[in-house]
Amino acid sequence: MEIQPLPRRRGRPPRQGEPRQDTREQLLRAGVASLTEKGFVATGIDEVLRSVGVPKGSFYHYFASKEAFGAELIDRYGAYFAKKLERHLADETLPAHLDRLRAFIADAQAGMARHDYRRGCLIGNLGQETGALPAAYSNRLNAVFADWQARVAACLKRAQANGEIAAQVDCERQAAFFWIGWEGAVLRAKLERRPRPLEIFVEAFFAGLQQR
Amino acid sequence: MEIQPLPRRRGRPPRQGEPRQDTREQLLRAGVASLTEKGFVATGIDEVLRSVGVPKGSFYHYFASKEAFGAELIDRYGAYFAKKLERHLADETLPAHLDRLRAFIADAQAGMARHDYRRGCLIGNLGQETGALPAAYSNRLNAVFADWQARVAACLKRAQANGEIAAQVDCERQAAFFWIGWEGAVLRAKLERRPRPLEIFVEAFFAGLQQR
Repeated sequence: MEIQPLPRRRGRPPRQGEPRQDTREQLLRAGVASLTEKGFVATGIDEVLRSVGVPKGSFYHYFASKEAFGAELIDRYGAYFAKKLERHLADETLPAHLDRLRAFIADAQAGMARHDYRRGCLIGNLGQETGALPAAYSNRLNAVFADWQARVAACLKRAQANGEIAAQVDCERQAAFFWIGWEGAVLRAKLERRPRPLEIFVEAFFAGLQQR
Repeated sequence: MEIQPLPRRRGRPPRQGEPRQDTREQLLRAGVASLTEKGFVATGIDEVLRSVGVPKGSFYHYFASKEAFGAELIDRYGAYFAKKLERHLADETLPAHLDRLRAFIADAQAGMARHDYRRGCLIGNLGQETGALPAAYSNRLNAVFADWQARVAACLKRAQANGEIAAQVDCERQAAFFWIGWEGAVLRAKLERRPRPLEIFVEAFFAGLQQR
């Protein structure tokens, strides 16, 4: 999964103060790249600064601490995928709600492929490291999963109302199962450097939905 | 999941050379504890030595490098769970092969509970960190998953031959799915500090086996 670069601004010259915002933005993007590849603990602030060409020591002009930087990355990554989910799940060009969920999955899978399966999920990576993270991160990470799960549960309920899945399916539980399995699949796809674990999980997930 | 302490030796006094082996063993156990809680990168050698009461600087009497230490931990953890799997999957007091798999799962779940869901799976934790690990670790981690998966696949095939699951089930694929989802569930159980993600995954896994 990845955060797409924002479109470059054209035309109007930057106002005063904007270069600072641009640098901050670049640091956040470099942070996402590093945290999705190797996690929080292995990410060095110096290395993030170097990758953006910002002088060593100037990090604290932009962020109060590495902890504050990481917290912002969690929230930002959570919001980015929430938006991506909503874009697909509300896509009225696809009448079947399950097709919308499949479109989100295909999008997330394409994101992994674009980075040659070197980057995993920032939330999953940090979830794995909790023993070494600031204590406040656990709640933040759980809140992101709860948000993503609620969106998938709502999609499954609409699919159920639409007759795409049987009435007895517990949509909340299936949505929880989706994120549990998806994170495992992302972990394995990154380790194997190929999409097969994602495909195996997705096939089993949809088969399970249809057969209850 | 955890590595159980070995039983203490009784009787016979230790031969010369044994204290060195004991220290080495203690360092490996402390390494498992740390790697299952927070991964490889966050594990400091000094901290491992301190927890065992071994003087700083003596690590290299026991291991060639942190990389060699980690490699031995991967192999050891892989072998430990392979043995645990085999013990359950060959348990003839349980006639149904799926019940043997359930017994393994209950054992692994009890291991997480014993550590209050603070420790995850060493292989999953390191799988998540691959971007920051020695390159040779990926093959080692994949080899462990391949071994665990082959054992579960063999169990599912015996269950199939026994009429416990339908003939059309692809046992290899289901075994792959098991480990993909299980690692996701362990990650989430550790993050939430409760067994619910394990329960949700296990229920969905067995339901999927029955309904194909």
